[in-house]
Amino acid sequence: MQTLSEIYFASSNKNKFNEAKNILSKFGMELKFLRCHLQEIQADDLQQIARSKVIRAFSLCSKPVIVEDDGLFINSLNGFPGPYSSFIFKTIGNRGILKLVSKQRTAAFQAVIAYCETNRNTKVFSAKVSGRISKKEFGRKWGFDPIFIPRGQRKTYSKLKEKNTISHRYLALKRFANWYLRKTRSSGQ
Amino acid sequence: MQTLSEIYFASSNKNKFNEAKNILSKFGMELKFLRCHLQEIQADDLQQIARSKVIRAFSLCSKPVIVEDDGLFINSLNGFPGPYSSFIFKTIGNRGILKLVSKQRTAAFQAVIAYCETNRNTKVFSAKVSGRISKKEFGRKWGFDPIFIPRGQRKTYSKLKEKNTISHRYLALKRFANWYLRKTRSSGQ
Repeated sequence: MQTLSEIYFASSNKNKFNEAKNILSKFGMELKFLRCHLQEIQADDLQQIARSKVIRAFSLCSKPVIVEDDGLFINSLNGFPGPYSSFIFKTIGNRGILKLVSKQRTAAFQAVIAYCETNRNTKVFSAKVSGRISKKEFGRKWGFDPIFIPRGQRKTYSKLKEKNTISHRYLALKRFANWYLRKTRSSGQ
Repeated sequence: MQTLSEIYFASSNKNKFNEAKNILSKFGMELKFLRCHLQEIQADDLQQIARSKVIRAFSLCSKPVIVEDDGLFINSLNGFPGPYSSFIFKTIGNRGILKLVSKQRTAAFQAVIAYCETNRNTKVFSAKVSGRISKKEFGRKWGFDPIFIPRGQRKTYSKLKEKNTISHRYLALKRFANWYLRKTRSSGQ
């Protein structure tokens, strides 16, 4: 498939970039890495955080650029750890989360992709995967993956080989890709 | 005592303002309320958050202005809930914290006052009160006060009548007041 367009992925995390690059390559899109630390704002809403980040990213590169944000929202904990997943993982980790969750274990992983190609004009794509918190950690240690079992599955994200074709990140990137490809085709690029 | 100077306190929280106003009035300083919502950044360091907030506050009022930020840092939880105390209190509350803390219960409350009187020129005053996490909640429900026992005390912040003359917020405000009064006197105001 012919490569359609170049887009930058702004992050300080090369692993996140590689995962997104692989997914978008399936849609014929080439992703370039813009390694940077983007100051995040405090907000309970991932979309607001991502919008503000992508505006900063665009001001750095002045090219079409995306940022990604995700979070785990546990229902019985009023959405904790939510938008602060990274700090909370770093401090109390999966062990802490398992101590906090008891009978009611439903949760959702949310991902947001924010895109910007002109100053202050952003577009946001989000996706959610519902599921539950496992009773123990299972599988490869990567964020909250060892404790999240998507609905309809029996294994945690960490143990699911197909994770990268069903995950919240995959779904949000797919939504972005579909929109972007339609837009590009209709403008005759 | 003659009132020396007017300073604004920027916050969306009238209770926080009232507490600070009472404390600073003892030093002959008059505090005015600048009711506003200041977007906070995500950072593990309270000083960085407060500096960025006070710059925004100054851009709103163009007058001498302070902001206050505080957080509870629990040693065995790597500084959790730290700078995200407000979100974490709202979601898992004191019950959640008590589930997470076990044998090692030491903690510290930190407060930061950031002051700005000219564009992008900030000064920061911080104070820390060490202590421990109680085994149950005791006293008036006000943030993490019912579960924090300052070092040398037997009661939680919530149960201590003298809290407002020993607290981290009091100490940070006092540091600011001492600096401000010296500065004002030496400039002959």
